[in-house]
Amino acid sequence: MRAAVYYGPNKLEVADVPEPHPTPCTVKVKVGFNGICGTDLHEYYAGPIFIPTTPHPLTGQQLPLTMGHEFSGVITEVGDGVTDYSAGDRVAIMPLYRCGHCGPCRAGTYNICQQIGFHGLMSDGGMAEYTVVPTDMLHRLPDNVSMELGALVEPMSVAYHAATLGEPNADGTSMVFGAGPIGIGLWFALRGKGVEDVFVVEPSATRRESIEALGARTLDPTAVDVAAFIADHTNGAGADAVFDAAGVAPAVATALACVGARRPMVSVAIYEKPLTTPLLNLVMNESRIQGSLCYTADDFEAVIALMAEDKYDTTGWVTSIPLDDVVDEGFEALHAGTKMKVLVDPSTADAVS
Amino acid sequence: MRAAVYYGPNKLEVADVPEPHPTPCTVKVKVGFNGICGTDLHEYYAGPIFIPTTPHPLTGQQLPLTMGHEFSGVITEVGDGVTDYSAGDRVAIMPLYRCGHCGPCRAGTYNICQQIGFHGLMSDGGMAEYTVVPTDMLHRLPDNVSMELGALVEPMSVAYHAATLGEPNADGTSMVFGAGPIGIGLWFALRGKGVEDVFVVEPSATRRESIEALGARTLDPTAVDVAAFIADHTNGAGADAVFDAAGVAPAVATALACVGARRPMVSVAIYEKPLTTPLLNLVMNESRIQGSLCYTADDFEAVIALMAEDKYDTTGWVTSIPLDDVVDEGFEALHAGTKMKVLVDPSTADAVS
Repeated sequence: MRAAVYYGPNKLEVADVPEPHPTPCTVKVKVGFNGICGTDLHEYYAGPIFIPTTPHPLTGQQLPLTMGHEFSGVITEVGDGVTDYSAGDRVAIMPLYRCGHCGPCRAGTYNICQQIGFHGLMSDGGMAEYTVVPTDMLHRLPDNVSMELGALVEPMSVAYHAATLGEPNADGTSMVFGAGPIGIGLWFALRGKGVEDVFVVEPSATRRESIEALGARTLDPTAVDVAAFIADHTNGAGADAVFDAAGVAPAVATALACVGARRPMVSVAIYEKPLTTPLLNLVMNESRIQGSLCYTADDFEAVIALMAEDKYDTTGWVTSIPLDDVVDEGFEALHAGTKMKVLVDPSTADAVS
Repeated sequence: MRAAVYYGPNKLEVADVPEPHPTPCTVKVKVGFNGICGTDLHEYYAGPIFIPTTPHPLTGQQLPLTMGHEFSGVITEVGDGVTDYSAGDRVAIMPLYRCGHCGPCRAGTYNICQQIGFHGLMSDGGMAEYTVVPTDMLHRLPDNVSMELGALVEPMSVAYHAATLGEPNADGTSMVFGAGPIGIGLWFALRGKGVEDVFVVEPSATRRESIEALGARTLDPTAVDVAAFIADHTNGAGADAVFDAAGVAPAVATALACVGARRPMVSVAIYEKPLTTPLLNLVMNESRIQGSLCYTADDFEAVIALMAEDKYDTTGWVTSIPLDDVVDEGFEALHAGTKMKVLVDPSTADAVS
């Protein structure tokens, strides 16, 4: 079969690889769509970062391996001992490997497992016609949730998890910094949680237009004094919940100037380096910065339920491409900023297996 | 009477001022001791910062005024309408003015009142033989709590409030960064809350020796890899609660490298400028930075109760001086680092009133 195989920085090739077969307690999935994530871009341009160069303790795999950890598909074959799933089941995949015995795993917060691994980074993933996954990664997709949406459950769950950690009040003002895919996911998650009053702060006109087309209200921080606007909008109380999906110092500084007393700024960004952060803002009103990483099964189920209620919309920000175009139309286009979210369709590869 | 009057930067003078008289719902207090606080030093060397140069909205006062917001005393006279207190009552003073109608005040978190004021910064305070305060600032001192300890209730309440926000578990490992007066207060507060396993991180040998003499275990961050030590000490779990009472970038970075999954670093420092902060640490284990400011009446009562149980000790870190020596033996000595905490005794002033 055809698969996008990562060999190292700037070396991702669509190659012929052996078709995988299910082992006990796993299933074989024919991939519907697989999204390209910012993490994948980091691996491509600056990796290997997460992709192991020696056998990973949880998967035993190392590069070269097939990328892709945001995917949906249809089960085609089940391994020995699998009774809950059968061929034909439509699924989204929660691609987390976790150790099961560290403190966070024992506390149920396996999203911060100390040995965390990802199917598609630490094992052969979803940028291929088929992939094999353990059954504990599977989440059923209702018939009215498309394969495209199914591939978005993973990034939307990252955002939903962060939205939950923000403990937003439905009648409060929420703010999202950054209108990339996670920012869009935060907007959908907050709306899904019943928050009506949401502002998305984004300096890029293209990204503002994109999220405005979905119904969001935006603020351009290069044109508006965002903190003054929010102070006025909230009668001086400040924002009820603030989310940083931008990961840059100006966003963090503005976010902390907006967050209300005893309320959170949730960080759901991969900060490439330590930022200059005005911690005094936290002290003066006892607000907080709360980190958020990944998701648990509850987040997957919540997002899928909202998708089944038609609460997510791919219009204008999601593009599908054939597997063979993954580098030029996928990684390079995302890197250049000409696309926002790309789903790879492996069924359109030049299949030879 | 004699009082330490602040006229502006580097101008604090012990002067003769009129003795105040109680108005309705206030009492006149003969000051026992008044502590000099870091905030006072900022006003002296770089002010006015908090001290108003136009009439303060809650007090109507502006400079020049008598400094001092950490004090104990004995009531000598009560104003009209005061029935709960009478002459002879021994008290500690919670020196907060609050507006009563902003969001935080309505929520009971008046320690972060949007118009917060302090008796001794926004009105004539405790570095004088007498001062007049509203009854809602008064907290009775049990007979076995000395006037010296009474003057320490205020800073110890700052620390106790922060300790509470850290939600420490009695069987967990707590860490305190900085062994100044607030760091010492955190150590006493954590011990008072039943936490046995506390490490105080402090680069100054003098300060380490000072808190070690009280019974604390310390770590010298210039000699020990603190994060590695705590990882080993906690079997990889990280610290249960971390407190930053240092306010400098290396302390924050180390603190965030130590804090455990889903646990807090409480900031109880006045950060003079934004610090380079490794926010990615928060994301990776969903820990948080929680700001902490001042105290409420509950904190005052908790500290006084612990003092009555003999849980606080002034040995080795608290020095009393006469009011007339407030500049040389107080402000200058604290600034030079030759003393850690100074209590001013106004009864030893050259009284003329």
